[in-house]
Amino acid sequence: MSFGFGKDFRVTLFGESHGKVVGAVVEGCPAGLQLTEGDIQQELDKRRPGQVLTTGRRERDLVRLLSGTVNGRTDGGPITMLVDNEDVDSSWYEKHRYIPRPGHADYTAFIKYHGFNDYRGGGFFSGRLTAGIVMGGAIAKKILATRGIKILTHVVQIGNIKVGTQIKDEQVEEFAYSSPVRCADRKKSALMVAELDRLAAEHDSTGGVIECRVLNLPVGIGEPIFDSMESVISHGIFSIPAVKAIEFGSGFRLSGMRGSEANDEFYVKEGRILTKTNNSGGILGGLTNGMPLVFRVGIKPTSSIGKPQQSVDLRTMKERELRVEGRHDPCIAVRAVPVIESMTSICITDLMVRVQMIPRTVGD
Amino acid sequence: MSFGFGKDFRVTLFGESHGKVVGAVVEGCPAGLQLTEGDIQQELDKRRPGQVLTTGRRERDLVRLLSGTVNGRTDGGPITMLVDNEDVDSSWYEKHRYIPRPGHADYTAFIKYHGFNDYRGGGFFSGRLTAGIVMGGAIAKKILATRGIKILTHVVQIGNIKVGTQIKDEQVEEFAYSSPVRCADRKKSALMVAELDRLAAEHDSTGGVIECRVLNLPVGIGEPIFDSMESVISHGIFSIPAVKAIEFGSGFRLSGMRGSEANDEFYVKEGRILTKTNNSGGILGGLTNGMPLVFRVGIKPTSSIGKPQQSVDLRTMKERELRVEGRHDPCIAVRAVPVIESMTSICITDLMVRVQMIPRTVGD
Amino acid sequence: MSFGFGKDFRVTLFGESHGKVVGAVVEGCPAGLQLTEGDIQQELDKRRPGQVLTTGRRERDLVRLLSGTVNGRTDGGPITMLVDNEDVDSSWYEKHRYIPRPGHADYTAFIKYHGFNDYRGGGFFSGRLTAGIVMGGAIAKKILATRGIKILTHVVQIGNIKVGTQIKDEQVEEFAYSSPVRCADRKKSALMVAELDRLAAEHDSTGGVIECRVLNLPVGIGEPIFDSMESVISHGIFSIPAVKAIEFGSGFRLSGMRGSEANDEFYVKEGRILTKTNNSGGILGGLTNGMPLVFRVGIKPTSSIGKPQQSVDLRTMKERELRVEGRHDPCIAVRAVPVIESMTSICITDLMVRVQMIPRTVGD
Amino acid sequence: MSFGFGKDFRVTLFGESHGKVVGAVVEGCPAGLQLTEGDIQQELDKRRPGQVLTTGRRERDLVRLLSGTVNGRTDGGPITMLVDNEDVDSSWYEKHRYIPRPGHADYTAFIKYHGFNDYRGGGFFSGRLTAGIVMGGAIAKKILATRGIKILTHVVQIGNIKVGTQIKDEQVEEFAYSSPVRCADRKKSALMVAELDRLAAEHDSTGGVIECRVLNLPVGIGEPIFDSMESVISHGIFSIPAVKAIEFGSGFRLSGMRGSEANDEFYVKEGRILTKTNNSGGILGGLTNGMPLVFRVGIKPTSSIGKPQQSVDLRTMKERELRVEGRHDPCIAVRAVPVIESMTSICITDLMVRVQMIPRTVGD
Repeated sequence: MSFGFGKDFRVTLFGESHGKVVGAVVEGCPAGLQLTEGDIQQELDKRRPGQVLTTGRRERDLVRLLSGTVNGRTDGGPITMLVDNEDVDSSWYEKHRYIPRPGHADYTAFIKYHGFNDYRGGGFFSGRLTAGIVMGGAIAKKILATRGIKILTHVVQIGNIKVGTQIKDEQVEEFAYSSPVRCADRKKSALMVAELDRLAAEHDSTGGVIECRVLNLPVGIGEPIFDSMESVISHGIFSIPAVKAIEFGSGFRLSGMRGSEANDEFYVKEGRILTKTNNSGGILGGLTNGMPLVFRVGIKPTSSIGKPQQSVDLRTMKERELRVEGRHDPCIAVRAVPVIESMTSICITDLMVRVQMIPRTVGD
Repeated sequence: MSFGFGKDFRVTLFGESHGKVVGAVVEGCPAGLQLTEGDIQQELDKRRPGQVLTTGRRERDLVRLLSGTVNGRTDGGPITMLVDNEDVDSSWYEKHRYIPRPGHADYTAFIKYHGFNDYRGGGFFSGRLTAGIVMGGAIAKKILATRGIKILTHVVQIGNIKVGTQIKDEQVEEFAYSSPVRCADRKKSALMVAELDRLAAEHDSTGGVIECRVLNLPVGIGEPIFDSMESVISHGIFSIPAVKAIEFGSGFRLSGMRGSEANDEFYVKEGRILTKTNNSGGILGGLTNGMPLVFRVGIKPTSSIGKPQQSVDLRTMKERELRVEGRHDPCIAVRAVPVIESMTSICITDLMVRVQMIPRTVGD
Repeated sequence: MSFGFGKDFRVTLFGESHGKVVGAVVEGCPAGLQLTEGDIQQELDKRRPGQVLTTGRRERDLVRLLSGTVNGRTDGGPITMLVDNEDVDSSWYEKHRYIPRPGHADYTAFIKYHGFNDYRGGGFFSGRLTAGIVMGGAIAKKILATRGIKILTHVVQIGNIKVGTQIKDEQVEEFAYSSPVRCADRKKSALMVAELDRLAAEHDSTGGVIECRVLNLPVGIGEPIFDSMESVISHGIFSIPAVKAIEFGSGFRLSGMRGSEANDEFYVKEGRILTKTNNSGGILGGLTNGMPLVFRVGIKPTSSIGKPQQSVDLRTMKERELRVEGRHDPCIAVRAVPVIESMTSICITDLMVRVQMIPRTVGD
Repeated sequence: MSFGFGKDFRVTLFGESHGKVVGAVVEGCPAGLQLTEGDIQQELDKRRPGQVLTTGRRERDLVRLLSGTVNGRTDGGPITMLVDNEDVDSSWYEKHRYIPRPGHADYTAFIKYHGFNDYRGGGFFSGRLTAGIVMGGAIAKKILATRGIKILTHVVQIGNIKVGTQIKDEQVEEFAYSSPVRCADRKKSALMVAELDRLAAEHDSTGGVIECRVLNLPVGIGEPIFDSMESVISHGIFSIPAVKAIEFGSGFRLSGMRGSEANDEFYVKEGRILTKTNNSGGILGGLTNGMPLVFRVGIKPTSSIGKPQQSVDLRTMKERELRVEGRHDPCIAVRAVPVIESMTSICITDLMVRVQMIPRTVGD
């Protein structure tokens, strides 16, 4: 059951890296929403492989919308979307089936499934499955847009190059996707590009940090205790391969602060209650407080690297050297940006549908 | 529904800070497990208020085990446990009902529930509800112990005092709970105690970082994509009040590392596959890999402080100064240690029951 | 997890027949609902043992409301309610622990739980657990009453005595609970009482049929395919011990009808769309159609009878004769009436909360 | 979320009657199961339209298996299957969009979805969606077969023609699907065929009763209280369009029996505990008792009939006469046989996976 996420707005993923398709079924989308293949394609294009600085696999990722709409609007039923896997070559994996790649799920999946898992390109553990997250997120974003909610995401660190200053919302909105590394700070973006070129040349990789902000959220989204905003978002975000850390608001820095400094004091502006600071990242008691929801996600370096690494043959239990062939993204954080944006949209939509901030039909 | 956590081993919390009781119902515990009130009391005592350096509220927290056992063993049915709220004085909250405390859920809950929420001591948003987590965790720990699994947790940072070196497992096991601040590094523990005394005198507070390690886990726990080990644990941990950050293995440090350095290479030792490093924190592709599962949790400073703070009267929308009365824990991270340990136990038990690594009856 | 029912309005049962308590936790009740122990007690009294023609066990069943309200209104949190088991004598069960009673769960539970189940009075398989259903139903009924929805339930058959004609809604409402056998047809009620006296004298028992009608439902409750109104109600109703059959509207009679006769034709009355007949029992495509929702439930005879029966000693696998001691309800259908009413209320409330026909706060 | 069924073995349906496809995603299938498109096609062929005495719509229903297998075996991931809708003509529905067909979901869906539902052929309320149930059931049956479990289903009543005697298991197994009306009693089968010819000529329809038996079940399947065997099966079965009644074992007849007659007494045969009678239908306390699980399902007459019926124009609220065009199954019970068989398989597989009677990998 772990291929589906969400309680009232639910995205179920399917497919394998080297199988026929990857896709998603979305349940719980309000009826009446205008939705075309173009809406989904637009989001899918943001994570498509084969762009600058990314993996050599060429996939067009043309979405097919198979169910859930009539006359250009959602009909209240499950929305099924998929893309074909077109550029698949499994020969390397056939040859190295029993030599798990360090950093990947190969070893753990082999044990869990007694060897019956799909070993080609990681099977359903592959980052390729995140295409389904983006498909579901495309719908979630359209729903949130009907409530004026925006999600801004960009890269704030690649390797040791960090965006030092707070970038304005408008700047993130405008520049994130025009940067080849999805970083809205143009100077740092250039440095990051150079760094990735260097790493690619060295057959190595690095990690990164992504910042996500959600604007215009109403107060009170999130459920007490086990479906706190942080719980639901972190659950979703850690489902994305390579994510290893998350912090909300001032995050780990809060551990070293004093309460008198960390508490966000309330004030009134134009009849609305706001806080002077936003150390809490827009969340109090697990519920949104009307301030921007802010979190940062730590991404590990791409595990597939050209350098030789130590592994073990699972049949003979002998140690073996392994060199992962092919071109791979030197920093997977770049392509994770739309995925994190999508996953966040799914989380918030689910919580809003649940508490009836989004009704079951939204058509005009 | 958000008061329950777990799919096959499920803990449902109930109660309010100033109501009659707090407690938990646990479903999915294997039948045949030896279980007494003493087993639960022992864990509850670790988080009881009224100990050194913590809140002034005096609660004995004597557990009553109301269902789920017969002849000293679990019977396969729901296990109901509760403690009475004995030392309750709601007068301050009656007086300040409409002035939300900064850092707390008061404001967001007021909006979400249209003022019908229990405003006394935070109602069910109170940290007091974590007593139920500890009750459920006491059972989970007993279950995990039948499989040889251990959970070690201690404080590695309070304010700006950080444990710099890696503390050995044995040391954590031996000293964590004998330290008044739950820190197994004895020197740092003493410094932390002094720091908390200072903060208490200044009516201020600070945050902290807790490290958790789970030893002796079999390979393959966790479910692909949406119930990855990181997803499930982070979901549970962020349900604990004051948690604002989590990182697994080398966490945010991974973002600055190279793949060739971050990947944990495999080797064979005594017929078992291990990794030379443990940057992944014992998790590959969301599944345990047999290495120690390691994560760190960032806790914000206690929100209740004696210093005056700015707030707003929710009836008049006028700004008001607020001073939270009474003695409060200067660093809530200290009492969060057994809660994090318990929540982690619940997460792992749920995932193991689900994949049948723990059978439905465990009696001998 | 099977001790909880409902997705958005959820009732979790706990307790054992001969344990300390039986009770329920209710999640998802809208905040702001006026609720006292008296509201729950009133419903519990309808199923209390120790009344005319029922089991000899004397239980006062005085409810204690332990959480979920503040100042007489629900606060949005879990509502915990329980009653003590006061009149418990387990000696018979200790003596016959390994001789399963025919018709009961003794044998199947012994196998399922490897003998660790509570064998005293059926443990959590006991009909006594339905007290928790009635507690949850008491809340559900109060919620439905805020929408003008009424549930009418009465006995239409005991043994071979059947209510032949359709009893008017008003008559059911007025007489069901004043009849000692919960039958609103006064003549048949008297015959049923006589029949039960006869059976009691013969140490035997019989079954019955209960009819349930839900009035004033809006159109469109129920969810397509797997949460059809029939699916959800039947799921809930079959969770009640001794239920073996259910039919909606004209039920099994429809199998022998023609489509031209069975289809309920539409017409308009005072601006509302109604159907001329109600063979569908108020449900079309799994959704309510605004007509009265009607179903009948078949209850098997009380399994505990004084007559000697054939069983097997589970230790020796030898056949043994068994005679269940004590006085038992000669027809359990009588006491099942408020349970079916309660369970139906829970089902409908859950479905209505889910589709936002009931908001998350209902206070005035 | 109501398009998915099952907790650990889960089938999610998608598609519309006149959309591009209908299909299913199956989660929780053990890894290692041999599975081909042929396995699924074989089951699909049993319910395919366009056979004798059924609807005139011609669909080949050729399944495409899109994910979840590698090298002819399941890989532990979601299994996606679909068939195309090929023979679709929506012109009648476009013309009668606002005139709901009696007996169908047209009216209730229109209200629920504010007119945004797919009105063509019932959209996702169509019986065509049961193709997905059969796809999921094909997998469930293969899993159950690895445990020796068999499901026998046949028609025991069409209109007023009833199978009077108990048909032997072997006879059901051999003849059910060779009968054009899925009735294993050959004489009655012939009468039923004649009756359906007559009804077709009169542009009318009738209902039927289907009996289902599950053989070789181990003891103890089903979960206490809310996931009793009866609860889960009835939930699933009532999700099938046109089902209006269900009874287990002796069902409604039990209501008129005495306890001394209804209780199934235990005895020992070849070291196994059996019952002399099977009035309980193989279920005690909601758990299987090792005897054949038996239930009967009441199906209403096909709602689509050629005769003129009274309806209402939803725009003008004026009454209108409606005549449903095209050829339709004169008795939908015939094609419901494989659907009930499939749904039952899904229910039992889910409950068995849950309690670990079926492991997570089943490959040899």
